[in-house]
Amino acid sequence: MLIKYGVNSGIISFGSAKDCILASSAAVLRRQQFLIRSLGGYTDQTTQRRMQQVNSMSGTALEADSETILRAITPILDPNRHKGQAGKIAVIGGCREYTGAPYFAAISALKIGADLSHVFCTKDAAPVIKGYSPELIVHPILEESYSISGLGDEERRCISSKILAEVDKWMERFDCLVVGPGLGRDPYLLECVSEIMKHARQSNVPIVIDGDGLFLVTNSLDLVSGYPLAVLTPNVNEYKRLVQKVLSCEVNDRDAPELLQSLAKRIGGVTILQKGKSDLISDGDTVKSVSIYGSPRRCGGQGDILSGSVAVFLSWARAKEKSTISNPTVSGCIAASALLRKAASLAFENKKRSTLTSDIIECLGRSLEDISPAS
Amino acid sequence: MLIKYGVNSGIISFGSAKDCILASSAAVLRRQQFLIRSLGGYTDQTTQRRMQQVNSMSGTALEADSETILRAITPILDPNRHKGQAGKIAVIGGCREYTGAPYFAAISALKIGADLSHVFCTKDAAPVIKGYSPELIVHPILEESYSISGLGDEERRCISSKILAEVDKWMERFDCLVVGPGLGRDPYLLECVSEIMKHARQSNVPIVIDGDGLFLVTNSLDLVSGYPLAVLTPNVNEYKRLVQKVLSCEVNDRDAPELLQSLAKRIGGVTILQKGKSDLISDGDTVKSVSIYGSPRRCGGQGDILSGSVAVFLSWARAKEKSTISNPTVSGCIAASALLRKAASLAFENKKRSTLTSDIIECLGRSLEDISPAS
Repeated sequence: MLIKYGVNSGIISFGSAKDCILASSAAVLRRQQFLIRSLGGYTDQTTQRRMQQVNSMSGTALEADSETILRAITPILDPNRHKGQAGKIAVIGGCREYTGAPYFAAISALKIGADLSHVFCTKDAAPVIKGYSPELIVHPILEESYSISGLGDEERRCISSKILAEVDKWMERFDCLVVGPGLGRDPYLLECVSEIMKHARQSNVPIVIDGDGLFLVTNSLDLVSGYPLAVLTPNVNEYKRLVQKVLSCEVNDRDAPELLQSLAKRIGGVTILQKGKSDLISDGDTVKSVSIYGSPRRCGGQGDILSGSVAVFLSWARAKEKSTISNPTVSGCIAASALLRKAASLAFENKKRSTLTSDIIECLGRSLEDISPAS
Repeated sequence: MLIKYGVNSGIISFGSAKDCILASSAAVLRRQQFLIRSLGGYTDQTTQRRMQQVNSMSGTALEADSETILRAITPILDPNRHKGQAGKIAVIGGCREYTGAPYFAAISALKIGADLSHVFCTKDAAPVIKGYSPELIVHPILEESYSISGLGDEERRCISSKILAEVDKWMERFDCLVVGPGLGRDPYLLECVSEIMKHARQSNVPIVIDGDGLFLVTNSLDLVSGYPLAVLTPNVNEYKRLVQKVLSCEVNDRDAPELLQSLAKRIGGVTILQKGKSDLISDGDTVKSVSIYGSPRRCGGQGDILSGSVAVFLSWARAKEKSTISNPTVSGCIAASALLRKAASLAFENKKRSTLTSDIIECLGRSLEDISPAS
């Protein structure tokens, strides 16, 4: 695999030499691990410790101490604080076709402890999303091509400007945007959302990108490239497309941490949470993994919980003093991954094969309480 | 009865001779059963065994070992799998008049363990179905005659093509379609759905047909004739109409298994699940029955649960190696029938006369867990 992206790297100007170094260190690491496993006389624990040391030395993914990080991030509930101080999140998503995904992301943020959760979606999607819960603030402002089909270019531009102005009114108040859950792939809508992302970036608002937002970003890398407050949360297929586009190579499980690190670095230090059996998280400098057991159920919608959760934890992490949380985006991802896994595990214990995303959302509160009690 | 359909069989070119043989063997069987029952000295168990032997010899419906089949079909939950691998189901149904039925079918699929459940319905029905649950992906794409009443033939054809193209985008991803729950009988809509079924068949996607889908199919047998991945799930009246149309005779309880077998064979080896006090299932070669006790409550909507359940079990059965599950459509029907009966029985224990379809759906998970524990 590494040779593959070496071969294709002619079109990419930055990072290839480093990728090769990472690649050869991965090969050295595998040999070291094999030697350690081959040594007699070690107990399992000793072997594990040794392997962790090797991992640590080589930069390969090290299991994060996710519960400690989650506790460090989660703010103390202080009666002196007022509405909004525990987080104001906005989800950009929800179209004629999809309404569940933005709801899952937005309600998860509230269930974890954010104070306010907004959704910016199309006019069609808004009443449905509002109907799922009175807790959300839903703005019916986005437009899809079909709803403006009779209009000329000038009128379309005018509508775009209005949409953007509407979001801008709120932008500075948000601690984090989630772009993508149930966004759909309508070209006119995605164009508007690109502009929203540019404005968010100008305002230094962090952006978590999932689902169709990743489709948008994979085709317009400039939107996030070099923005350290962008977090991408790809699943298996979204990750494949991203790697193909950015590194011109195929995904290979063996060198997963190295590949992820290269990808994050190449996109200019964004943070990537690669979802899988273990979640891997990298900002281009380090790679961490979260492997605590979740659930074997793969019902659609769990990714939406994760994106809403990352938004909250990232916001909380950024609000802490820098000396406490060194890297808010990576720490936010670790905390969100750990919490989702714990909630999924709790839900599965009870509902088994019948577990749905709503069941997992109902377990977010108890899971957080188990790790970081409110009082 | 047998004479009846002999008399009317002039219009049907295939199968009548065989039907007569089945009919006379049924008469012989009934006499044998009477003799066995009349013999003194047999314990009940011996009588049952004898009757089973006779059944087995004659090809009459044999009670399926449904729980064993259900366990064999249900996949192990493997943490290495990703979203979609436990099943992606689509329900074609839902119009201005009916919205509950497609919801029941789609949500049942998820509650049994499918990963993704879509609904393709009319524009009017979509917001309501979406509102029932954020877990479903609802596509508002079908049209009824009233919504295109001012348009000319060319425009109508253009809309049909768009609808078909929209479904086609998804078709290859689906493991099974359910056609019919809450579909209604609008001619324009049914024409579109006929085209969707043809495309599904070209793509080798299994189709479970219930409700108004059976109305469509009874009048256009070509849609399913000779397609071994079609499953029809008629209730008493739908079955009557089907038998009248295909075999030109009336239904008679005495020879139910033979008649069902003839019907399935005559439609070219589709699988039919004939719902009743006992469910009978035949693909034209064998006839199986599922008689485990369900509930005496006959609230509307239980058929929708069944159609969604058949879709999931059929998909799971097809994903197994052929050596394990010899006939995925029949096995899928047996498993679905057994699970619905168990869930209905559990719901009735608790809710009695007040039992509704939603109560039964809530018992699907526990019922499946009782038979085939997730871990």
